[in-house]
Amino acid sequence: MSAIDEVLEANRLCALDYDPGALSPRPRRGLAVVTCMDTRLSRKSLGLSAGDAHLIRNAGGVVTEDVIRSLLISHYLLGTTEVMVINHTDCGLLKASERELHDSIGSRAGLAGSVRFHAFTDPEQNVREQLAKLADLAWLKNEKVTVRGFVFDVQTGSLREVMQAKQQA
Amino acid sequence: MSAIDEVLEANRLCALDYDPGALSPRPRRGLAVVTCMDTRLSRKSLGLSAGDAHLIRNAGGVVTEDVIRSLLISHYLLGTTEVMVINHTDCGLLKASERELHDSIGSRAGLAGSVRFHAFTDPEQNVREQLAKLADLAWLKNEKVTVRGFVFDVQTGSLREVMQAKQQA
Repeated sequence: MSAIDEVLEANRLCALDYDPGALSPRPRRGLAVVTCMDTRLSRKSLGLSAGDAHLIRNAGGVVTEDVIRSLLISHYLLGTTEVMVINHTDCGLLKASERELHDSIGSRAGLAGSVRFHAFTDPEQNVREQLAKLADLAWLKNEKVTVRGFVFDVQTGSLREVMQAKQQA
Repeated sequence: MSAIDEVLEANRLCALDYDPGALSPRPRRGLAVVTCMDTRLSRKSLGLSAGDAHLIRNAGGVVTEDVIRSLLISHYLLGTTEVMVINHTDCGLLKASERELHDSIGSRAGLAGSVRFHAFTDPEQNVREQLAKLADLAWLKNEKVTVRGFVFDVQTGSLREVMQAKQQA
């Protein structure tokens, strides 16, 4: 049985107990979390249940244009006022340089070389760079949205806060 | 207490029971799921546990450049061979047109108008368009990655499969 067929089978069972009234599209805790697609990161490690937060996830937990689009909708349409950016130790994007990813993935996939993979060498520094991108967004500042950054340690399961290098005026 | 401080408090407790050996960076089921950041979608509804799959999430569950970057890493670096694209009923991006989002969010956020929000009017049709974008990627075809699309019904908790309009040769 394929993984997708297994998911469909599990979904059929889960749907029997599903309560549609329990959840609103507006995150109960007013929180949006930007993090990695990594399989070791779970809502459970953050103490979050369905209904609590928006989860925005990509390779690395990088603040891309697409993440900013999602945050605009999260805040203006659905009322979130706090943002966590979470990168993690042992990330795939830590294990190879941008150049190595281009050489390995780019050549196997037949890419022209225009994809930026967003490799990084230090998760703390990478989070700081993501926070700096968000600090540059006037709307986030004007709307008084709280933004904080963290590294999740996959060895201990703990979050460690990363301070932003400089506060924008 | 802020939502983020609540998360940190919960994380401190969760970390006490954390088992670092249980999980590998390679998704156990070889599966990547592209879906919406919506708070009503949960891994539980898919029968997935930590360790099983990559979760790639943005506003809508749209196949953007950033999602394609994540899928490249998911497949070539971490071995996934199946992709589910899941949109859902009652999505925020269903409730307003691209124009209305620009008028409301764009003006309040002071955006120049260059952001594409990816509003849509029919989740089935939108999934079909995301599948078509993936079908255009030569590497996905060459690598024999299985791609299937679904709509999650937030009233029933059920997944419904969406067939692709046309199969690429």
